Amino acid sequence: MTVEYMNTDSSLALLREERLGRLGFVCDGEPYVVPVNYVFDGVCVYAHSRQGHKIEALRVSRRACLQVDRIADGHHWSSVLVHGEYQEIADASERLEVYCKLLARFPRLTPVEAFEDHGSPQPGAIVFRIRIDTVTGVSSG
Amino acid sequence: MTVEYMNTDSSLALLREERLGRLGFVCDGEPYVVPVNYVFDGVCVYAHSRQGHKIEALRVSRRACLQVDRIADGHHWSSVLVHGEYQEIADASERLEVYCKLLARFPRLTPVEAFEDHGSPQPGAIVFRIRIDTVTGVSSG
Repeated sequence: MTVEYMNTDSSLALLREERLGRLGFVCDGEPYVVPVNYVFDGVCVYAHSRQGHKIEALRVSRRACLQVDRIADGHHWSSVLVHGEYQEIADASERLEVYCKLLARFPRLTPVEAFEDHGSPQPGAIVFRIRIDTVTGVSSG
Repeated sequence: MTVEYMNTDSSLALLREERLGRLGFVCDGEPYVVPVNYVFDGVCVYAHSRQGHKIEALRVSRRACLQVDRIADGHHWSSVLVHGEYQEIADASERLEVYCKLLARFPRLTPVEAFEDHGSPQPGAIVFRIRIDTVTGVSSG
């Protein structure tokens, strides 16, 4: 089995096409990984979350990664890892804009963190972006 | 959508039944996530890897997590996160034993890291365990 690096265009294409990733962050030196639905606009990854441990950790460390893969079988797969800065979106109009993008992609909303199925972001919901600064992709097959 | 904590038995059952997880680790303060095939024996998670950045980082930090999920749809999913100590398996007989467990579960071997499809571990292949010390599971649906 040969494993090759993907070029940036291919890596970003996979990131754009998929919608479920695994968010990595660090808390007190420990690694954490949680599944998260996201939208990618070519520059940033957007997602939302309930308040909690993850958000508290991200506010402190400010660094996050998102790993996204497409695995056909053990010999045909791709995996992309992006790193970037965690930024909460507090501005009301931008928040609504991102929320609409998420809702367009996830009509019923989804995994570990979700709004409460109302027409607008709930007070406790956090909308955030990861402003990507590094991209790495590897594939096999 | 309600999200509930899973008890330890349910979390470990999911870990035992699945075989693809996302390994999280920290390098120079940055979070990293890679897909990895694993075997769980009730105490430790076992996997293998080629030499590289991941192994170098794990040798330094000694801490790792493995996130495993089962996602039916946006409202029916489970996700388990285990943390533990990274330990390389250097003893030849134990290495072979773990390798056989991996080969039994992955006859063709698989994702990001794999042996070279020969009958025994290659010189450059790393066999390691994560000795689990914490387990957290959440589910919805």
